[in-house]
Amino acid sequence: MAARLEALRDLWELDQPTIGGWCAIPSAISAELLGVAGFDWVVIDAQHGLVGFEDLAVMLPALSNAGVPALVRVPWNEPSAIMKALDAGAQGVIVPMVNSPEDARLATEACRFPPRGNRSWGPVRPSLYDQEYAPATANRNVICAVMVETVDAVASVDDILAVPGIDAVFVGPSDLAISAGFLPSADPTEPVHLELIETVLKACKARGIVAGIACGNAGLVRRWRDEGFRMLAVPSDMSLLSDAAAQLLRDIG
Amino acid sequence: MAARLEALRDLWELDQPTIGGWCAIPSAISAELLGVAGFDWVVIDAQHGLVGFEDLAVMLPALSNAGVPALVRVPWNEPSAIMKALDAGAQGVIVPMVNSPEDARLATEACRFPPRGNRSWGPVRPSLYDQEYAPATANRNVICAVMVETVDAVASVDDILAVPGIDAVFVGPSDLAISAGFLPSADPTEPVHLELIETVLKACKARGIVAGIACGNAGLVRRWRDEGFRMLAVPSDMSLLSDAAAQLLRDIG
Amino acid sequence: MAARLEALRDLWELDQPTIGGWCAIPSAISAELLGVAGFDWVVIDAQHGLVGFEDLAVMLPALSNAGVPALVRVPWNEPSAIMKALDAGAQGVIVPMVNSPEDARLATEACRFPPRGNRSWGPVRPSLYDQEYAPATANRNVICAVMVETVDAVASVDDILAVPGIDAVFVGPSDLAISAGFLPSADPTEPVHLELIETVLKACKARGIVAGIACGNAGLVRRWRDEGFRMLAVPSDMSLLSDAAAQLLRDIG
Amino acid sequence: MAARLEALRDLWELDQPTIGGWCAIPSAISAELLGVAGFDWVVIDAQHGLVGFEDLAVMLPALSNAGVPALVRVPWNEPSAIMKALDAGAQGVIVPMVNSPEDARLATEACRFPPRGNRSWGPVRPSLYDQEYAPATANRNVICAVMVETVDAVASVDDILAVPGIDAVFVGPSDLAISAGFLPSADPTEPVHLELIETVLKACKARGIVAGIACGNAGLVRRWRDEGFRMLAVPSDMSLLSDAAAQLLRDIG
Amino acid sequence: MAARLEALRDLWELDQPTIGGWCAIPSAISAELLGVAGFDWVVIDAQHGLVGFEDLAVMLPALSNAGVPALVRVPWNEPSAIMKALDAGAQGVIVPMVNSPEDARLATEACRFPPRGNRSWGPVRPSLYDQEYAPATANRNVICAVMVETVDAVASVDDILAVPGIDAVFVGPSDLAISAGFLPSADPTEPVHLELIETVLKACKARGIVAGIACGNAGLVRRWRDEGFRMLAVPSDMSLLSDAAAQLLRDIG
Amino acid sequence: MAARLEALRDLWELDQPTIGGWCAIPSAISAELLGVAGFDWVVIDAQHGLVGFEDLAVMLPALSNAGVPALVRVPWNEPSAIMKALDAGAQGVIVPMVNSPEDARLATEACRFPPRGNRSWGPVRPSLYDQEYAPATANRNVICAVMVETVDAVASVDDILAVPGIDAVFVGPSDLAISAGFLPSADPTEPVHLELIETVLKACKARGIVAGIACGNAGLVRRWRDEGFRMLAVPSDMSLLSDAAAQLLRDIG
Ligand SMILES: [Mg+2]
Ligand SMILES: [Mg+2]
Ligand SMILES: [Mg+2]
Ligand SMILES: [Mg+2]
Ligand SMILES: [Mg+2]
Ligand SMILES: [Mg+2]
Repeated sequence: MAARLEALRDLWELDQPTIGGWCAIPSAISAELLGVAGFDWVVIDAQHGLVGFEDLAVMLPALSNAGVPALVRVPWNEPSAIMKALDAGAQGVIVPMVNSPEDARLATEACRFPPRGNRSWGPVRPSLYDQEYAPATANRNVICAVMVETVDAVASVDDILAVPGIDAVFVGPSDLAISAGFLPSADPTEPVHLELIETVLKACKARGIVAGIACGNAGLVRRWRDEGFRMLAVPSDMSLLSDAAAQLLRDIG
Repeated sequence: MAARLEALRDLWELDQPTIGGWCAIPSAISAELLGVAGFDWVVIDAQHGLVGFEDLAVMLPALSNAGVPALVRVPWNEPSAIMKALDAGAQGVIVPMVNSPEDARLATEACRFPPRGNRSWGPVRPSLYDQEYAPATANRNVICAVMVETVDAVASVDDILAVPGIDAVFVGPSDLAISAGFLPSADPTEPVHLELIETVLKACKARGIVAGIACGNAGLVRRWRDEGFRMLAVPSDMSLLSDAAAQLLRDIG
Repeated sequence: MAARLEALRDLWELDQPTIGGWCAIPSAISAELLGVAGFDWVVIDAQHGLVGFEDLAVMLPALSNAGVPALVRVPWNEPSAIMKALDAGAQGVIVPMVNSPEDARLATEACRFPPRGNRSWGPVRPSLYDQEYAPATANRNVICAVMVETVDAVASVDDILAVPGIDAVFVGPSDLAISAGFLPSADPTEPVHLELIETVLKACKARGIVAGIACGNAGLVRRWRDEGFRMLAVPSDMSLLSDAAAQLLRDIG
Repeated sequence: MAARLEALRDLWELDQPTIGGWCAIPSAISAELLGVAGFDWVVIDAQHGLVGFEDLAVMLPALSNAGVPALVRVPWNEPSAIMKALDAGAQGVIVPMVNSPEDARLATEACRFPPRGNRSWGPVRPSLYDQEYAPATANRNVICAVMVETVDAVASVDDILAVPGIDAVFVGPSDLAISAGFLPSADPTEPVHLELIETVLKACKARGIVAGIACGNAGLVRRWRDEGFRMLAVPSDMSLLSDAAAQLLRDIG
Repeated sequence: MAARLEALRDLWELDQPTIGGWCAIPSAISAELLGVAGFDWVVIDAQHGLVGFEDLAVMLPALSNAGVPALVRVPWNEPSAIMKALDAGAQGVIVPMVNSPEDARLATEACRFPPRGNRSWGPVRPSLYDQEYAPATANRNVICAVMVETVDAVASVDDILAVPGIDAVFVGPSDLAISAGFLPSADPTEPVHLELIETVLKACKARGIVAGIACGNAGLVRRWRDEGFRMLAVPSDMSLLSDAAAQLLRDIG
Repeated sequence: MAARLEALRDLWELDQPTIGGWCAIPSAISAELLGVAGFDWVVIDAQHGLVGFEDLAVMLPALSNAGVPALVRVPWNEPSAIMKALDAGAQGVIVPMVNSPEDARLATEACRFPPRGNRSWGPVRPSLYDQEYAPATANRNVICAVMVETVDAVASVDDILAVPGIDAVFVGPSDLAISAGFLPSADPTEPVHLELIETVLKACKARGIVAGIACGNAGLVRRWRDEGFRMLAVPSDMSLLSDAAAQLLRDIG
């Protein structure tokens, strides 16, 4: 695991794009399947996916076994959700609805032990594999990605990015669209919507922070990659499965 | 499902009373059983019932299959609990301990997408059945019932009801009794207790908001129905089962 | 626990009737609820109840905690199902569809260590509470009830009862009715059906073996108790709950 | 549900082909997703899928809610597995490795109540929706599909088909290939392999029994449909998801 | 259960030390095993242990059956986590990261019904065993232990202890060490670290509140017991198991 | 994983002893903990451990991640249990109560695809990691260990070993003791008991088949290793944990 996780940080440090898979199905075997599919990282979505703690506690070892860094999107910006995901072995978290520097501070501090934050000691699963696991190592390794996905958040994006400890900003285009008065859309076309996304990207670039985004299809992955996003999430397992079944039925005729 | 859910709103709009079943047992089959028993709606009680997220994620499809609208009483007034219940397919939530307009705003906003609230987009289960599922539809359909169950809440009931987006107020007579200095009671007899309940009912009537209440037995359902409550919950599956076993043993002698 | 279990054998040895609760819902809390309801024993129905091994492994401690002897009706007359139930702490098993002496031997031998049977050693849960737990004790304590529930089984009932190690015979009236060409019925009225039941009862009395039967209601418990049945099972939690909900809705009107 | 199930039998009686989805992931939400995808029926694969009884007990209500007939492929030709699947609400079973008339009799008898078989009475979930649920109805409705998937089975196919109560024969091309000395293949090309499949198809046609087959891709569905197969299973959710992820990564480049 | 729980309070009132076991493994059987091992109380660690609500809901009956008082360390100082643990039958909670009187008030009030707090009525499991279960009894019985485990918390320890309703203060030496700038350590040796611990102990003694601490080994239990700690927790099941396996492999050579 | 598994076969081919851990607790995290403890292989005990299929399906990825070959002791000599364990990714099985060549044939054939056996094709988890996974590879890799643990089995041990496809014979000393008329014992001292064990060992040596045995403590591991056993299982996680807790309490005093 360590190798792959270091690889991810290395890729980001070399400003290389990375592609992530997305688990919404609460199952170890579907997670493991995505884990071996070739993604650079995989998210377990405990926000909108139907995933509770017992689920992610068995999905994480499956993803580790697949040799891919596993992030958990926590249900909300809550210390307990963030810390439990990390104790269960997530290499990092994606924290939704970070709309202000205060929100960002809450998220980053939950990811880091003192003096950088207030994470509580008890790294039950990570320490199985690293007897020398220590606060400093953990603070270096754990990835904290915050979601900027409202108009308010974009307005404060520079202040948010100024909060120490943010490794990446992950844009949620659907929530951002709704917050801007549009329909949620996998394929942003509204100029205002696009401008909001670009604002986030520019702010990230200016600070050397990885910019990420949820992409509704392969074309969007390519497009945002070309623009400079380095953390590109593909549609969820449920979307892929649903589309594949529909396509198959069309192919059968 | 749509039909039955619309039927519930229709009944309420016609000022018709509705009866709800109550699931405290964390099991899909006991939920499905209550779902087909003839209730107008069924609650999965994730507050005092022994129900966690993994449980409700499998109880909700069972209740859908039974063709009955399913509400989730969330453990506490927390956005993550409310949003996860809705993403998993609950037609609405009952939010406990709403004691102030601020509490009410927190609850209603978690139930609705912008601009009416801050619900985050990702309606995983509802969108399986409605490819056109959109924020506006969701905002119209989702039922937000807030619990008024303390002396403080009753004192602020008018201000609470003034918060936009409350579909129903659900009275918790036991908590209200304790908060007023009495023993929790399924059958309110203390004048002060009764007066508190009446105060809520009147406030709801004045605003055209559905009033609901937990009823300890059939007689209380009839009584509160006659008084004007339109959302009448019967005792939980655990109470029914416990009473049925006791009665059976008495009948055997 | 020991006390209550001994009490059950004592009651049977004094030819006293005993009443049993029936768990079809796969849940520790509904099991525990029935466990404290006042029954002399409780069955976890892993045959027709929606109960798998993971379920019964958590229902058994709940029933132990309630202080009531717990039997498991296994899905079928299979050694693995019988032995796993006993290792998980069931005080005994009810084995369905025992239609011949060979079937009976298969069942009783799976319940007992050599030389009385072929149960394999590994009493994981029972030995938590009895460090002196030994094959001889186990062989004495474990209850093996076999179901006689087909016309063929009744025809062979004397040979079945002659198999050593049968503690009780449990009649399944519904399967017996179907096997005799009638509809499954909670309340046997067909003379042929009744005669089959009486045949089993007489054979049990002749050998001093406890006779048991599933009873569709309190009246049938009283009737079969008067006839001499000593192991009287009431309807399942699902039946009780379903009837209670229906009655409640009728009472509400 | 009844409508859709009748529709399936109707389609078969009109000699119309039907397409089935395949669940190997142990999850209610992925099952429900396939349930709404447009298939005529869906299989929960408890043989090679990672599905245990607790899993299928929550996947079945999800599939019912999706309005699609649900079959369970049981792990092996065992009465307990067949009967528990039916009690949990499966509309039918697919029984693997039916290699002889004796095997077929074991399978069909486990699906039917006396006098047609030896299924034991306790239809816990089906009777929730049909208070008149009776042995005769159940015997008519339950679908028993047996797998012919070895050289020996093909050699005995006429004797197997002569066993009363077989609704469909389902060919497992991979096992059949291995048993004939070939590699397991989603796309049979070996003449001997093809001939074995054709032999089964002809035997089914001669007896008016539905022939089914697992198809590795859309082209094979079309091909076998043209040949006269009427029960055409598509690749499992795991296959679809794996292929979709691989294709997506190729599309991204 | 009642007997043992009273015994715990009695021991504390007699100023007797008590030893507690620690469950981090999410399993009813390992909890039950620790429950019978001879500890005075056992904690289910839902903070750093891999334990979610569904897990603790089945671990609690197992611990009750073992006859030992069960505490739950909740994931965070949140009312929903505290109240759900108590409704599921925990005899008390250990609340992490109580750093101020405000934190302490939040914790203690969530443990007690009005007028002492804001716990909501619905004691589903406790009331199974005590039909007279009432707010006053519950308020007396429930144990609220708060964790003092940061430098800030120690600085405010007198104010924290002044909050009514604290039964015990539980020191987390690892978090305290990190907060003081040291490595987390099972065996505090840094004078500053030791002084912080002593400060808490003295404050507890001054107020007659039980002092507790997590102890990394038997020697530390003896040491802290001699110093006056009365709530001494041993290493978790995971630590014990890990050490035992390592020792065994060393013994084998 | 492949590396470690090959290492196990290599060790056996070099006649080197190997030590195995034993999981009776149904939990992915306790399995993973044993997986990293340094054993050469780990068994998930689905016979006497409280482990069902859903449990082992999540324990296997955890053990894979720990990098240790995982065997499953199946509940009984049944094809469905054996095949499901292998499809879920077990590197092999330990089959209890193999008392005759017929039993041995049933076990070995369930482990191997035709023409060597009758395993059915569907290696869901193994094929995630090996797209070239094929019957011949699987037949070579899968480990089939049969338990010789009765007097009858020892009497037939030569005939049992003559059955092709047995990789190892695993002695169950407790069952063997009971079958020989003794108490189950972790430390065989009865000459008759010891002689039975030696008979198995000699027969294995004569055929070049690995001999294995369950060892009650480190001393017995050394003793049996010196005698020539090459598959040495230590006490279960439950035993280790129970002993560790007892020792700790003694050390505390
Ligand atoms: Mg979002
Ligand atoms: Mg309340
Ligand atoms: Mg029966
Ligand atoms: Mg096959
Ligand atoms: Mg701490
Ligand atoms: Mg054995």
